[in-house]
Amino acid sequence: MNMRFTQAAIDTLCADALRFLAIDAVEAARSGHPGMPMGMAEIAVALWTRHLRHDPADPAWPDRDRFVLSNGHGSMLLYALLHLSGYDLPLEELKRFRQFGSLTPGHPETGHTTGVETTTGPLGQGLANAVGMALAEKLLAAEFNRPGHTIVGHRTWVFVGDGCLMEGISHEAAGFAGVQRLSRLICFWDDNRISIDGDVAGWFGDDTPARFRACGWNVIPAVDGHDVEAVDHAIRQALDNAGRDAGPTLICCRTTIGRGSPAKAGSADVHGAPLGAAETAATRAALGWHHGPFEVPDEVRAALDAHADGHARHEEWKARMAAYAAAYPELAAEFGRRMRGELPGGFAVLADALVAGVHDEAATMASRKASQLAIGRLAGALPELLGGSADLTHSNLTDWPGCGAVRADQPGRHINWGVREFGMGAALNGIALHGGFIPFGATFLVFSDYARSAIRMSALMKQRVIHVMTHDSIALGEDGPTHQPVEHLPSLRLIPDLDVWRPCDAVETQAAWHAAVARRDGPTLLALSRQNLPHQPRDDAALQAIPRGGYVLADAADPVLVIIATGSEVALAMEVRLALQAEGVAVRVVSMPCTSVFDRQPDDYRAAVLPAGVPRLAIEAARSDGWWKYLAGAPGAVVGIDRFGASAPADELLRHFGFTAGAVLARARALLAAP
Amino acid sequence: MNMRFTQAAIDTLCADALRFLAIDAVEAARSGHPGMPMGMAEIAVALWTRHLRHDPADPAWPDRDRFVLSNGHGSMLLYALLHLSGYDLPLEELKRFRQFGSLTPGHPETGHTTGVETTTGPLGQGLANAVGMALAEKLLAAEFNRPGHTIVGHRTWVFVGDGCLMEGISHEAAGFAGVQRLSRLICFWDDNRISIDGDVAGWFGDDTPARFRACGWNVIPAVDGHDVEAVDHAIRQALDNAGRDAGPTLICCRTTIGRGSPAKAGSADVHGAPLGAAETAATRAALGWHHGPFEVPDEVRAALDAHADGHARHEEWKARMAAYAAAYPELAAEFGRRMRGELPGGFAVLADALVAGVHDEAATMASRKASQLAIGRLAGALPELLGGSADLTHSNLTDWPGCGAVRADQPGRHINWGVREFGMGAALNGIALHGGFIPFGATFLVFSDYARSAIRMSALMKQRVIHVMTHDSIALGEDGPTHQPVEHLPSLRLIPDLDVWRPCDAVETQAAWHAAVARRDGPTLLALSRQNLPHQPRDDAALQAIPRGGYVLADAADPVLVIIATGSEVALAMEVRLALQAEGVAVRVVSMPCTSVFDRQPDDYRAAVLPAGVPRLAIEAARSDGWWKYLAGAPGAVVGIDRFGASAPADELLRHFGFTAGAVLARARALLAAP
Repeated sequence: MNMRFTQAAIDTLCADALRFLAIDAVEAARSGHPGMPMGMAEIAVALWTRHLRHDPADPAWPDRDRFVLSNGHGSMLLYALLHLSGYDLPLEELKRFRQFGSLTPGHPETGHTTGVETTTGPLGQGLANAVGMALAEKLLAAEFNRPGHTIVGHRTWVFVGDGCLMEGISHEAAGFAGVQRLSRLICFWDDNRISIDGDVAGWFGDDTPARFRACGWNVIPAVDGHDVEAVDHAIRQALDNAGRDAGPTLICCRTTIGRGSPAKAGSADVHGAPLGAAETAATRAALGWHHGPFEVPDEVRAALDAHADGHARHEEWKARMAAYAAAYPELAAEFGRRMRGELPGGFAVLADALVAGVHDEAATMASRKASQLAIGRLAGALPELLGGSADLTHSNLTDWPGCGAVRADQPGRHINWGVREFGMGAALNGIALHGGFIPFGATFLVFSDYARSAIRMSALMKQRVIHVMTHDSIALGEDGPTHQPVEHLPSLRLIPDLDVWRPCDAVETQAAWHAAVARRDGPTLLALSRQNLPHQPRDDAALQAIPRGGYVLADAADPVLVIIATGSEVALAMEVRLALQAEGVAVRVVSMPCTSVFDRQPDDYRAAVLPAGVPRLAIEAARSDGWWKYLAGAPGAVVGIDRFGASAPADELLRHFGFTAGAVLARARALLAAP
Repeated sequence: MNMRFTQAAIDTLCADALRFLAIDAVEAARSGHPGMPMGMAEIAVALWTRHLRHDPADPAWPDRDRFVLSNGHGSMLLYALLHLSGYDLPLEELKRFRQFGSLTPGHPETGHTTGVETTTGPLGQGLANAVGMALAEKLLAAEFNRPGHTIVGHRTWVFVGDGCLMEGISHEAAGFAGVQRLSRLICFWDDNRISIDGDVAGWFGDDTPARFRACGWNVIPAVDGHDVEAVDHAIRQALDNAGRDAGPTLICCRTTIGRGSPAKAGSADVHGAPLGAAETAATRAALGWHHGPFEVPDEVRAALDAHADGHARHEEWKARMAAYAAAYPELAAEFGRRMRGELPGGFAVLADALVAGVHDEAATMASRKASQLAIGRLAGALPELLGGSADLTHSNLTDWPGCGAVRADQPGRHINWGVREFGMGAALNGIALHGGFIPFGATFLVFSDYARSAIRMSALMKQRVIHVMTHDSIALGEDGPTHQPVEHLPSLRLIPDLDVWRPCDAVETQAAWHAAVARRDGPTLLALSRQNLPHQPRDDAALQAIPRGGYVLADAADPVLVIIATGSEVALAMEVRLALQAEGVAVRVVSMPCTSVFDRQPDDYRAAVLPAGVPRLAIEAARSDGWWKYLAGAPGAVVGIDRFGASAPADELLRHFGFTAGAVLARARALLAAP
């Protein structure tokens, strides 16, 4: 510690340095959010200088604490902390805040900026990510720690604002974290009574401490968020109370948004706009900050630099890891593999054998059932598979023999998420970000709408998350239009970097699972049928081609029609093909379980599957619009559903909506007869 | 009352009749959800025979109580109640539960079955619909009631299950209802400790009474939900406590799911599957129910028939309404117009004049700003416009001079919803369903994901709700990919019956608002720019054609290229057209602000706008896939964005992603040069 300053003076300097880096960066960018960094600076100092266990030299250290900025608009606070504590984030990058190609985008982006654990900005999701991280930590600890050997033992810290707490997902996250007793999750509420529209009194009247207590949290109320000692004391209380059953902790920090700005502190004006030159100068004067823009006093750099502490903690952990590896060499190797996200050696061979085996079985079943069997086949080889469902386990079929339910007092491999689709989706992202698991979670396809932003975030963060969505068309039947997806398949395909697989039988379902677990750079969504789907026989070439996303399932010499279909409609396409072939019409059927994977194939492959100029008929029990892209360059038609469904037995619905061989044949004949 | 039975015996008979209608209908359908009706039967008897103020002979009576079944899978309970209380829902329809074309679909559908106030099934949304209904009641009462004349004074009653309460939207709805002190909202919690996966203890540990108290609700705990008198007593407590500041009420009813079934009561087995013949018989025996399937004793029909009470209450209200009309004839006429959902006479003339005026102004501005001005121009003529924003008022620009903020103690016309996009969306549906208002609510377009299921429900219910979504492309700039919509425009267009308008200037913005308020059979979503958009000059034909959704904005004799564009990209299309015309290439520009409205135009109009065989180039700063539908039948290309955005100033992003005249020109030339 610097001898010229008291601890309190150093803390103040550090907090003000964080404030001014944020102020100056927002000024330079002429846009951004200074209010939150100015309001949470002391909380950040207390956590980052006294408690956060991390090593700036190795941001991927498996047992580091996770820090999540759920109120992600305050990104400059995080960038300032990363820069000053010693991450590879030079001051030049802070000066390029919100500029093209900088490491300091408007909201924190994981994978883009070192040390950023998750991408935040869409409010409330950071908290749910953190819940996933804390759950992953707890489950990994239970799986890998041994008596006298604690190799997993870190914490997850979260900053949340009033906005996060108004969002519904905060309820899902809080309820789930409470019932799972995630005692190593510690959350700081930036209680500044201001949101974008102004003083929250008019629209946010919750008694937040009581609300979190009602969800089983340990709540530390009424902490002065501008007193580093008070925050430090609250953190110590939280740590003291971190027994297995204590539950997660909420530290309620009373703060002033934009603190330090004479004219704007405590008002919504400081939330999302630069202070302006005059107010910036006034703030410098008011806080006695005599440094120029982006100037950081040496004392601050010394106090916030986390290299030494981080190195020491990391070395201590490495020693523990070495002892563990000596005592449990296989477990240690497995832990390394899991945290690196690598599949076990020989997985590809196993995968091929499994697909071949399923093909040999030639079984008729619902693809949701085929999915359950696929999970069961993989679960032994892939202990990192961690499944679950949002209270539809026996409909989604996500459990498997011996999986074990994850409970507060019991580790397992299947999570009952409760009726919390969005919270589940965001927590899955947190589990994947944490590492050590390949998480999947399930609901009905129509309720992907509830989780849609989390699915988008899986893709934006390029995380290996598997979203399992069953009951994938009107053929779910009697539950009716509220439960029948119509627009969901094409609309999910529009999310960049999300692979949507809709397998046509058990074979494609097995292959889709392999594609999902083998994909290192993004999420997969599986759309699965409620109803039985017949097995499709294939030659070797077709079997090998499934991973290409679209392939010739049945061919003819010089086809005059190509029928493209997915999922349950592939059987219909095959039926129509047979009828046309009987009339002497040569028809090719292309099964297209995953359009985005097909899109990534080389041009010549795609042109070989969909030959130019040959008429194409696409069939899918969903909105038709998306298929026109695959009909360009040839006469075409789409058999789809461009209205909401209805409540009735599946067969009647399929008949009514034209998903019968007769109706499709008529469409095919009309297409072939067109000039 | 029947003299042979005590009140308690009649109540029991009624509850059991409801139980068996549900059991028998689910048996007949071989699918459905008997558990909830069996568990909430006594609560329904208490509410429907003793408190609910409604008139089965006039389900549209404006001052009727609203009843919402948020746990919509229990639809048979509602159908049984509607049938027995005297709505036009014959027993034959109950026997056709979940069959094609019946009035008794799997989940309740408003507009399809008389007396069903809202479509439910997607959990939690019914509660938020009810919040909107209660708010509409409160605001209408404040606007229309006069001293001594209460013409608006009804209640909103809601049934919710554990599933609804796990959903995040229940938090948004509860928080908003609490801070707005919606004292005429009374909610019954079916506390049966069972959800689909089983005993909720493993995934739902909330102290629900404490949670609702924390949100400012009046909570009546620990009511025996199988004791009609106890429920009645709790309702009376709620009514006694219904002063202006009491807040909404939650009545916590301890129940047993599937009560009456010897083998299945209290278990998840009875939630969503028929009891089966043997267990149905066992339940008949256990409850001493000696009637055949669908047989209802006369005593039950007499006790549940609401015609007499309903008629009396309705007549009493009509008398009050007549007195009101005598004292305030203009207000009474206006109340009638508002509740019928008719626009004021002469609105079409006003609308034309407004569009012409905006065209004459020829102003350059952001379409979000043009939207604010449009709202301001309409607000005087349309007092039913009720606006708001999910905590982005000064970004979405949804307020207008003199609108007044809606607060617990103050009526107004602009609602600060807080950071509650999904809750807002579902509450807007409730407001529209209630009648008397044309509600609109706003957030950023990217956060339509949070509200997506509610937007879908607006469309499924054909409600006149206006979803205002600003910051409609990467051109929002520095906030980066978490805030930049890319897939949202095409994906929202996939929702059946939703009209998505993306106006290119202030003129189209004004016209889009007119289309939205004039549309009686469905919702509209407005996608509006953050950045300025130049005015587009038009001839009269073009001005008249805006309401057709797509029209020729600028033409050429014998065009060799048609450029289709929307919103901010129309100006780019016009720029490219000028450059090509200068080279002697004849180019037509089609502005396509609303594809679905264009799709509804006659074939000849559409063919005239997009002539067959002429190459087409579509330009939109969004995923390209949806445009191929409009390129069928001609050579085509799409300038779009098929990846996530980035954080940078807007101009740099547009350059990087190819939205410059130069880049589009190159694409146009390549298209024209193609063989």
